[in-house]
Amino acid sequence: MNATDITIDDLPVRDELRGKSPYGAPQLDVPVRLNTNENPYPLPEPLVERIAERVREAARHLNRYPDRDAVELRTGLAEYLTKTGGHPVGPENVWAANGSNEVIQQLLQTFGGPGRTALGFEPSYSMHALIARGTGTAWVSGPRGEDFTLDPAAAGKAIAEHRPDVVFVTTPNNPTGTAVPAETVLALYEAAQAAGPAMVVVDEAYVEFSHGASLLPLIEGRPNLVVSRTMSKAFGAAGLRLGYLAAHPAVVDAVQLVRLPYHLSAVTQATALAALEHTDTLLKYVEQLKGERDRLVAALRTLGYDVTESDANFVQFGTFADSHVVWRKILDRGVLVRDNGVPGRLRVTAGTPAENDAFLDAVGELVSYVGATPTPPKEQSA
Amino acid sequence: MNATDITIDDLPVRDELRGKSPYGAPQLDVPVRLNTNENPYPLPEPLVERIAERVREAARHLNRYPDRDAVELRTGLAEYLTKTGGHPVGPENVWAANGSNEVIQQLLQTFGGPGRTALGFEPSYSMHALIARGTGTAWVSGPRGEDFTLDPAAAGKAIAEHRPDVVFVTTPNNPTGTAVPAETVLALYEAAQAAGPAMVVVDEAYVEFSHGASLLPLIEGRPNLVVSRTMSKAFGAAGLRLGYLAAHPAVVDAVQLVRLPYHLSAVTQATALAALEHTDTLLKYVEQLKGERDRLVAALRTLGYDVTESDANFVQFGTFADSHVVWRKILDRGVLVRDNGVPGRLRVTAGTPAENDAFLDAVGELVSYVGATPTPPKEQSA
Repeated sequence: MNATDITIDDLPVRDELRGKSPYGAPQLDVPVRLNTNENPYPLPEPLVERIAERVREAARHLNRYPDRDAVELRTGLAEYLTKTGGHPVGPENVWAANGSNEVIQQLLQTFGGPGRTALGFEPSYSMHALIARGTGTAWVSGPRGEDFTLDPAAAGKAIAEHRPDVVFVTTPNNPTGTAVPAETVLALYEAAQAAGPAMVVVDEAYVEFSHGASLLPLIEGRPNLVVSRTMSKAFGAAGLRLGYLAAHPAVVDAVQLVRLPYHLSAVTQATALAALEHTDTLLKYVEQLKGERDRLVAALRTLGYDVTESDANFVQFGTFADSHVVWRKILDRGVLVRDNGVPGRLRVTAGTPAENDAFLDAVGELVSYVGATPTPPKEQSA
Repeated sequence: MNATDITIDDLPVRDELRGKSPYGAPQLDVPVRLNTNENPYPLPEPLVERIAERVREAARHLNRYPDRDAVELRTGLAEYLTKTGGHPVGPENVWAANGSNEVIQQLLQTFGGPGRTALGFEPSYSMHALIARGTGTAWVSGPRGEDFTLDPAAAGKAIAEHRPDVVFVTTPNNPTGTAVPAETVLALYEAAQAAGPAMVVVDEAYVEFSHGASLLPLIEGRPNLVVSRTMSKAFGAAGLRLGYLAAHPAVVDAVQLVRLPYHLSAVTQATALAALEHTDTLLKYVEQLKGERDRLVAALRTLGYDVTESDANFVQFGTFADSHVVWRKILDRGVLVRDNGVPGRLRVTAGTPAENDAFLDAVGELVSYVGATPTPPKEQSA
């Protein structure tokens, strides 16, 4: 029934979308998937039962719209942040959406958008730039050092030069794993206010895996600073799509001007609340994964790889003349890692001990590829 | 811990958001809520159990990202459309998101956006204009007749004059209940292609309640025509937030350029699939509600109200010199209806027979307010 000769190019799509491909890692069916920084541990069965119970109750009222303001969920998230983040927050400081991607989209619709600019320090989470494009926000790529750290002077200079309206600081950074010290974030915040004012979004999607503490306390007295979080990683709930932010209540008020009404379904709210009841158990998995992450770093270094310091549940390693060739050779050995388009580097997620052993076995056979001068990879998969 | 003297106005929000309020009907705790076009019938208990069962299974894999392309769900939605819409479609014709609001947002990000214009015929679903604003799309209000129908000549003239990139046609229209005939939509499609090309979005959120047929067959041979739908109303699942569209596969490809990856959670997909298994039961509720809708229309007319023809699960009635005063007087009698800002009119959702009786009792006491010349209402709640 479909005229098959018609493609996207025949539709009146926006010019900047022409020739583009949808974002997303290849979803391949392989034994060991260490490519999307998922938590390898399924939710414990008591939590699975609790989710079924809470969703059953929510389903009895599913003919009604959900709580538009998700007050119970925001209260639960605030309690979690207060307990683990080193700073007391209340539901008025917290906002939740369908994944941190939607949180970021709402922030860019509020503080970015047409005629405005966002800046991030790349390589970093590539959705920041893509959501900027999707919201009509101009994008500027700021500098990182050769070791992927942020130099406050160089980063501040980029901010002063481009005067962005939104600055992204991802810590621990994806895909490099690099943590950003509080003093660096404070310096960038000051630079952004002097040049702006601008919102500074500290993306802490992986912070539970960090050696250091959350930067949540920095929101105190800084209404233009936002910390964004997710339940995808530490909570082992990538399938839930629950992202959230903590900030001054005025920020929470502001994003409600652009949020789609009733954006967060009753089943999502019920499932997230169930997961929050099991925080202590889930954080024990995080401790295991931190140990596995440290083991990967050490083992890769012993093998002779160049490994970037990691505070996340993944490890960046290299260097390769052609990282995509190595990506393929690892895949041929049944292990899927990620080519994020960083020249000469690949990223591996910390999985279960057995998965990590399989990965280490694979790369142990590939050490001959290490050390050559990297060239830009052929596929810029993000 | 929060500096309470800081408000949205102190943040670097976009200028067009200053002074605005979040969209949303007042959520008041009253005995009879007939204000948001919800289905009054809770999901049947076997479906509640099936949802719990499907979500339990999904929760066992919740540490993994959901199916990014929601293929099983789109297949189920395509089967439902094929069965009920008078036209065969496949999963390649269908796309789903978190509520039809997100479907519309994705369409506007793809085909609208900065430098582009969308047009709708107001009064209509006010989120069309608000999502246009949120995506940087200019908004033009097209004309309706005094009886709220669309005149193809006047509507076509507005399209020729403003040359919009996206045209919304809501049928049955919200808040008026007015159906738009297929020949009118075809005339507007031709006008939009002659002036554009433009995408024509036929918003069929309430179509299951219509006396007439879906306009789904119009997508055949018209790649620039999109039909949008929701599970909020006919499926009695407003809390689920599941909207979808049917169109040429190229449109489905195009919106994937702007969709946030993994936008649709595994629990949402599981719940929607469970509801689709119970379509026949849910459509029986729809038949009951159509009967109640017709009863409301007849009873209101007998009382002396001016009632707009309705093909939806709600009824627009009036006229009042000050509709907000009457809205308040109905609320004082324990019944919440909607003031959509249409001068001299209010909207009531068809509820259960008992709820509708309570509403008719309330307005039966208020007939003295009928008939005066309407003035613009004080509150433009949308």
